[in-house]
Amino acid sequence: MNLKSLTIALAATLAVSLCEAQTSTEKIKEDFQASTLNQPGQDYPRVNSQGYVRFRIKAPKADSIRVTLGLGGRGGTKLTKDTGGYFTGTTEGPMDEGFHYYHLIVDGGVFNDPGTLNYYGSTRWESGIEIPAHDQDFYALKDVPHGNVQQILFPSKSTNTQRRAFVYTPGDYGKNKSKKYPVLYLQHGWGEDETAWSNQGHANLIMDNLIAEGKIKPFIIVMTYGMTNDIKPGGLRNFKIDAFETVLTDELVPYVDANFQTIADKAHRAMAGLSMGGMETHLITLAKPEEFAYFALLSGGVYTPAELKDKPNAKLIFISCGSKENPTRVNDAVAALKDAGYNAVSFVSANTAHEFLTWRRSLKELAPLLFKD
Amino acid sequence: MNLKSLTIALAATLAVSLCEAQTSTEKIKEDFQASTLNQPGQDYPRVNSQGYVRFRIKAPKADSIRVTLGLGGRGGTKLTKDTGGYFTGTTEGPMDEGFHYYHLIVDGGVFNDPGTLNYYGSTRWESGIEIPAHDQDFYALKDVPHGNVQQILFPSKSTNTQRRAFVYTPGDYGKNKSKKYPVLYLQHGWGEDETAWSNQGHANLIMDNLIAEGKIKPFIIVMTYGMTNDIKPGGLRNFKIDAFETVLTDELVPYVDANFQTIADKAHRAMAGLSMGGMETHLITLAKPEEFAYFALLSGGVYTPAELKDKPNAKLIFISCGSKENPTRVNDAVAALKDAGYNAVSFVSANTAHEFLTWRRSLKELAPLLFKD
Repeated sequence: MNLKSLTIALAATLAVSLCEAQTSTEKIKEDFQASTLNQPGQDYPRVNSQGYVRFRIKAPKADSIRVTLGLGGRGGTKLTKDTGGYFTGTTEGPMDEGFHYYHLIVDGGVFNDPGTLNYYGSTRWESGIEIPAHDQDFYALKDVPHGNVQQILFPSKSTNTQRRAFVYTPGDYGKNKSKKYPVLYLQHGWGEDETAWSNQGHANLIMDNLIAEGKIKPFIIVMTYGMTNDIKPGGLRNFKIDAFETVLTDELVPYVDANFQTIADKAHRAMAGLSMGGMETHLITLAKPEEFAYFALLSGGVYTPAELKDKPNAKLIFISCGSKENPTRVNDAVAALKDAGYNAVSFVSANTAHEFLTWRRSLKELAPLLFKD
Repeated sequence: MNLKSLTIALAATLAVSLCEAQTSTEKIKEDFQASTLNQPGQDYPRVNSQGYVRFRIKAPKADSIRVTLGLGGRGGTKLTKDTGGYFTGTTEGPMDEGFHYYHLIVDGGVFNDPGTLNYYGSTRWESGIEIPAHDQDFYALKDVPHGNVQQILFPSKSTNTQRRAFVYTPGDYGKNKSKKYPVLYLQHGWGEDETAWSNQGHANLIMDNLIAEGKIKPFIIVMTYGMTNDIKPGGLRNFKIDAFETVLTDELVPYVDANFQTIADKAHRAMAGLSMGGMETHLITLAKPEEFAYFALLSGGVYTPAELKDKPNAKLIFISCGSKENPTRVNDAVAALKDAGYNAVSFVSANTAHEFLTWRRSLKELAPLLFKD
């Protein structure tokens, strides 16, 4: 277990809001449009073609509203009150492409922007905004056959609860009753939950599009809660994987194999995770070498040849991050794994940080490499 | 078409927040517990055994916070600021059992309570709270076989979009590849969407429990967006059902029949809806008599013998509401339908208004009456 790598990953999670936006002296284009993640009928927040975000919040009797997006390290975006009771403001610089969490500070209290949809992150339902990415087509909702995302409730004796997971089944699932599919177990990060990969990540649309383009053979994705939200900053060294490992490998995997058309063996089972989900993937794939044949860490640390020695060979080790994280570390780790004879692949997402566009792109790169036999 | 009945239903929707709580002089018991709908780790809002709700919101620099729950007609619950920067307050009277939507007014602005989960109602994601009902066991999450709720994306030529629906499949679905199931099409109310029946309504848990107790034969439930949210108060007379009717009967029903193990005929297809979803059920079942054999209006108007004359006989007409709505109208309508020879059933939910406990109970009463051939 490489504690330093985990600490780096978590530090990146916490630091990301401090460095999302760049100060800029460019002229702001007045081509703002309502964010695609707004609630029905809401005009604000708005995003322009450069990635600037403009906010507008009604609170006639409030004294101050600040938005935790844009130059967070210097206080986010402070809004200015007009005579009509609205607070408005624009980020000082453009935001990175992709998805960002944020919230408001209204007279010192934490509230969500009433204009946006909410996404579970930082152990709370946060406001979300999407800066259209130049490559957004790969996760767009298109007129192609769609897979389904289904909520399952599976019995967990170890925790004495009925636990929730979401299962993506590809568009052709169930049409041929005897066809069986490989399975990717895909984990969210710290502060998130089992809703993250389909809501923020668009994992289902990424898969639908890859399948429609003939770039991958269909497989199932299972996403459950990684029990990571009790981890407080600084408490990472005390994290015990055992509880989640038991739920995942002793309860969820057998439930999925019993209830879905899966190829129920190690060679057709992969595990991947983002950030703390990468840490969990790292720990569980090493602790249970009989379970998974494909390993993927998305902004979630690295494997070393030393820790893989004496373990059965993984069919693939995929390690990724955003270019604004620590790509050198990812590339160096993959080079070392390759030197040691492992089938390792690195991916660095251009111009993104520890956020969901990095992970959407990582899934798009990972999926065609899985289940190649 | 009975316009008066629709107006009454909509008026009830809008009026409900004005009459949720009763003024009371009883002593408030200090046995408050965190609401079951709170976000992870949140202690407030809290509910006591009498149904009082206590709120606590941090906003150190705010001047006023009001909660739109409890005696709404007199301004909801006004919170009081303490020296620690928290606003606290308790509803003046106990709330009805079951689920309630609400939000905060913070210095004149509309925000959600950061302590609670959010539910789509009133055309926005609202804060939700649950007052434990004496009969809550029927929608409790139990250690029984669970069905799945899956998000489907179906192509809609008439609206040129990929539209979303949620499909409940019972626990035994798919185990026997040749077993086919009847289908209930179940609609939400005005201001809600396709998430309402599983999130607020617990339709899946109600079904799981009824099936586990042997009270019903398993069937599928399909829930989609009824396109009702553009209806503004007062504009109801202008509501045109055509667009939704086309999506439902020409696009969704055929998609479900092509992609799920359904018995694809009228005799095994039911339609039900709550409030404006009842109005839609009313209109569509009358306009498309070849589609559905079972009709159910939940706080959503009534059928009259006159409008059913010359139509094929429904196998069942189910009409329900809460005792705090207009039960006399429901009972009278069902009596008239019975007199005219129809198989009509009424249900009145005790001590509830135009809210989700009425509709959870209605589904529990309706389900055993469906697909009895």
